Amino acid sequence: MPDQTRTVTGAILVIGDEILSGRTQDANIQMIALYLNELGVSLSEVRVVPDDEDRIVAAVNALRTAYDYVFTTGGIGPTHDDITADSIAKAFGVGIDYHPEALRIMAVQYETPDEFTEARKRMARIPFGGTLIDNPISKAPGFQMENVFVLAGIPIVAKAMIEGLADRIVGGAPVRTRTIAAFLTEGHIAEPLGAIQERYPEVKIGSYPFFRQGRVGVSLVMRSTDDAQLGETVDLVCQVVRALGQEPMEISEE
Amino acid sequence: MPDQTRTVTGAILVIGDEILSGRTQDANIQMIALYLNELGVSLSEVRVVPDDEDRIVAAVNALRTAYDYVFTTGGIGPTHDDITADSIAKAFGVGIDYHPEALRIMAVQYETPDEFTEARKRMARIPFGGTLIDNPISKAPGFQMENVFVLAGIPIVAKAMIEGLADRIVGGAPVRTRTIAAFLTEGHIAEPLGAIQERYPEVKIGSYPFFRQGRVGVSLVMRSTDDAQLGETVDLVCQVVRALGQEPMEISEE
Repeated sequence: MPDQTRTVTGAILVIGDEILSGRTQDANIQMIALYLNELGVSLSEVRVVPDDEDRIVAAVNALRTAYDYVFTTGGIGPTHDDITADSIAKAFGVGIDYHPEALRIMAVQYETPDEFTEARKRMARIPFGGTLIDNPISKAPGFQMENVFVLAGIPIVAKAMIEGLADRIVGGAPVRTRTIAAFLTEGHIAEPLGAIQERYPEVKIGSYPFFRQGRVGVSLVMRSTDDAQLGETVDLVCQVVRALGQEPMEISEE
Repeated sequence: MPDQTRTVTGAILVIGDEILSGRTQDANIQMIALYLNELGVSLSEVRVVPDDEDRIVAAVNALRTAYDYVFTTGGIGPTHDDITADSIAKAFGVGIDYHPEALRIMAVQYETPDEFTEARKRMARIPFGGTLIDNPISKAPGFQMENVFVLAGIPIVAKAMIEGLADRIVGGAPVRTRTIAAFLTEGHIAEPLGAIQERYPEVKIGSYPFFRQGRVGVSLVMRSTDDAQLGETVDLVCQVVRALGQEPMEISEE
């Protein structure tokens, strides 16, 4: 059951030299952000750190004490640069060993015991106290330590893993979003928009310019857990857009 | 002149509710990472924080003391949610006011003084001591405070801004990258690859699985400032791939 009385927060820790080197465009942050919205968890911080044990330990410990939930991506494969599981064990001050259930889950996909190489078995090493996270794509599981969820880095696997976590994550009041677009410049709408924001501090109003069909426009995004205030804000923003001689277009994004 | 004797580090601070809410897919991290590679700056951390002054101040101060260069993106437009300039001023403990040169640069694009609204003029507010960063796309400048470079969030503008900074950024020894791909699984190559990594600690070897034309493969990425060690590592990795019955494919990514 969602806890409607407070904001539940989340953070993502991307573990990945390949993101920092520019080799790979991250695709997990947006996917996780959108999924957390559905669960009523407000994504409040993201960090990207290299495949370096000290850096991972420091970031995990900073984030897990500051936010309700932490999601890590990357570094749980079979190669030498996959050091996430050991780093998480160190962050929690616990040991790590082969997890019998993880070994069993992984073993079924190999036709001969030879194929289940030592490197692949490494993926069954789970910190003591960790509970497994199902991987319906490629078997090797993620794991949960307290409020930290350790996911794969490959987007299709990360997505499948997090979608199995709905019953382990208790969100807060869901944040609703309404978006109004108009062919106006930010320079013209900024002042009345700021006045509306001041009047409705519980609604977060964002302004994002766009360029479409040769015309400059702005998307005005309103987010709140309070439906009534959200509705009033949308009405006021529409009035402002009309007063500036344009027709507001409501964009449904969800 | 690049300083060949040490690693020069950089960090990115993405200021953006729109990234954390999942509304927008970030496109700046990879662009900045690739540009910093060219300058010999190693991107070492990324943080994404909300449009919240305290959070921005804390992140800027953490990053600017830990890394040689910090690049922020977002929050320098004309609307109430654009609070980056004020937050940077606070992080550095200085005041902020309209910058005469910034006003002059911006004014030229408006046909009448009416069009240069108060909201637009806000974009000319620069912390004391800041030097302007040219914006060839939409005029409103970014700015530099010591080792912190404040860029726009819109990717085309961020890119144009950072490309004008080459003479303000002194990189270290450039990191070279070589990539070998092969139709092998990580599970088969992990052990010999780990042995090569142990022998060449100055070369960072990353392993990234892929799925192409119905076949599973792996990209082996080697990065180093030492050309000789990099070449030796590539040769050894090619030998390992051949010993496993596959032909190494050299991928040129730069």
